Amino acid sequence: MAPEIQRKLTTILAADAEGYSRAMATDEPGTIADLRASRSVFSRLIERHAGRIANTAGDGLISEFSSVVEAVQCAVEVQSELQGRSDAALRFRIGIHLGDVIVDGADLLGDGVNLAARLQTMAKPGGILISARSMIRCTAS
Amino acid sequence: MAPEIQRKLTTILAADAEGYSRAMATDEPGTIADLRASRSVFSRLIERHAGRIANTAGDGLISEFSSVVEAVQCAVEVQSELQGRSDAALRFRIGIHLGDVIVDGADLLGDGVNLAARLQTMAKPGGILISARSMIRCTAS
Repeated sequence: MAPEIQRKLTTILAADAEGYSRAMATDEPGTIADLRASRSVFSRLIERHAGRIANTAGDGLISEFSSVVEAVQCAVEVQSELQGRSDAALRFRIGIHLGDVIVDGADLLGDGVNLAARLQTMAKPGGILISARSMIRCTAS
Repeated sequence: MAPEIQRKLTTILAADAEGYSRAMATDEPGTIADLRASRSVFSRLIERHAGRIANTAGDGLISEFSSVVEAVQCAVEVQSELQGRSDAALRFRIGIHLGDVIVDGADLLGDGVNLAARLQTMAKPGGILISARSMIRCTAS
């Protein structure tokens, strides 16, 4: 009697901040303020690109887009805006992957999400890492 | 004009599964079923010990308790029940810390949460790691 698993193909954008725990240990109010300001930039630009935030946990964020192009444009704009802020101490890594996910209420689970998160860990702080599969879709469109 | 920061002292229980991404890549439906079954054990026992789930993200879970003793008892019962399940493939690490946190809607942020999460990463799979500060409270009560 396994519960039904609902799948879909979507573009996942995973983001996480470099040195978040260290920053929080050093300057908690400043890091909270920075995190909130960064989340607000993510929210605004994800919405502008017709994406949706599926989950946030600490400095981590999982979002999805119906188009790889929109996800990539969103990521570029987020990094550009965050890097333009003189007060921003947190630098985010972003991973983008087009993959199969499992819908879990408003949240997303599955290997596709984990792959996006793994790409994110390999991105440079302030940078974006896009899976080859997503790139093919991006350049083909 | 920094937004107000609401703090409180609470006992944080952080949990995460060993080898979750690998399990998901190998057997996605089985891992999803296992994750859902494990989350249901956590939910039931956290509620029984008057705790509250603040956040879940993938295999990660952050919860809080008003008492260190309840948090520790909950963790022991969770690990005992999960280990008694013959079908359970995921093994959880649990970290418990009594600390100052920042209330962010229903979620919790701050150094206290990050410390609980760091303890969790250092726990053995199937085990529980409790910060010295929490232990003092636990044995004193």
